[in-house]
Amino acid sequence: MRKASGADPRKRKGLIIVNTGEGKGKSTAAFGLALRAAGNKMNVFIMQFMKGQWKAGERKAFEKLAPYVEMVPMGDGFTWDTKNIEQDKATAKKAFEIVKEKLNSKKYQMVIFEEINYVLHYKFLHEEEVLQTIKNKPEMTHVVCTGRNAPRQLIEIADLVTEMKMIKHPFDEQGIPAQKGIEF
Amino acid sequence: MRKASGADPRKRKGLIIVNTGEGKGKSTAAFGLALRAAGNKMNVFIMQFMKGQWKAGERKAFEKLAPYVEMVPMGDGFTWDTKNIEQDKATAKKAFEIVKEKLNSKKYQMVIFEEINYVLHYKFLHEEEVLQTIKNKPEMTHVVCTGRNAPRQLIEIADLVTEMKMIKHPFDEQGIPAQKGIEF
Repeated sequence: MRKASGADPRKRKGLIIVNTGEGKGKSTAAFGLALRAAGNKMNVFIMQFMKGQWKAGERKAFEKLAPYVEMVPMGDGFTWDTKNIEQDKATAKKAFEIVKEKLNSKKYQMVIFEEINYVLHYKFLHEEEVLQTIKNKPEMTHVVCTGRNAPRQLIEIADLVTEMKMIKHPFDEQGIPAQKGIEF
Repeated sequence: MRKASGADPRKRKGLIIVNTGEGKGKSTAAFGLALRAAGNKMNVFIMQFMKGQWKAGERKAFEKLAPYVEMVPMGDGFTWDTKNIEQDKATAKKAFEIVKEKLNSKKYQMVIFEEINYVLHYKFLHEEEVLQTIKNKPEMTHVVCTGRNAPRQLIEIADLVTEMKMIKHPFDEQGIPAQKGIEF
């Protein structure tokens, strides 16, 4: 029984959700959560930590869900140029400061750290700082972290962790190119 | 290289996508695909094969994505009443006939068979008939099938199969009740 009475020790709270694994659907499921939240008139903020990942389809759809979904791609100057890793780190840090401020503003009931696992895995951000920020999030705010290779410590503080496991992929087996509406 | 030139044997086509497994995100990722497709001005039809699964959040959000996303919950009279399994089968069959007609109308670029795996697993529909319908779908239409226990034969005809694997779940470990914006 999952009633939410006052006496129930299991009170409502914002969850820390992690979508990880090698398979598809990590970001897509996060966007599905944003869709559902927006339908419930909850405010959603999405920070995209990887450049060039914003696809026209979801951007246009989120525009229709305004004012509930707000999304920011990391600085346009961001290139993951391994020849200039310090600059990349500075850009990631700037993006993190923005999402951290949004998170702590309590204006949003859901904050999505899109591809943060990737950024953490490659040490573009200081893991401990990111974890502390997420751990100390406003109580009622849901935080969603996506990307392969979720750090072990993030999984430890998370409430809900799903691994998207690839069973079959069309690019592997059939050489089908990326499909409009699926991949972008 | 994934160019889509005429000479390229890997031509664009509609994919058969399956989201299965015990974890979260199967339907949510399908809804994320619907969102992305709608943003690309593609028409999406969703048949929901399980009663009471339509949550207010996604319904309201999809309304904002009109006219691109159309969804139909299986007949209201549907109860999964095991005392009347023949009636349940008839209802499932009716829902299947609707989605089959929508699929073959070629009006939709994406058709989502929401929780069809569940219905197939419990033999509420004739598996071979469903598989043939999906296999013979219009070439350019994407079909998305969700639910636990995807039948082996469905996985065989699918292009993209992802297993959502539960690593950590808040209801198990902490007894947190279902959260607005996440579960409904």
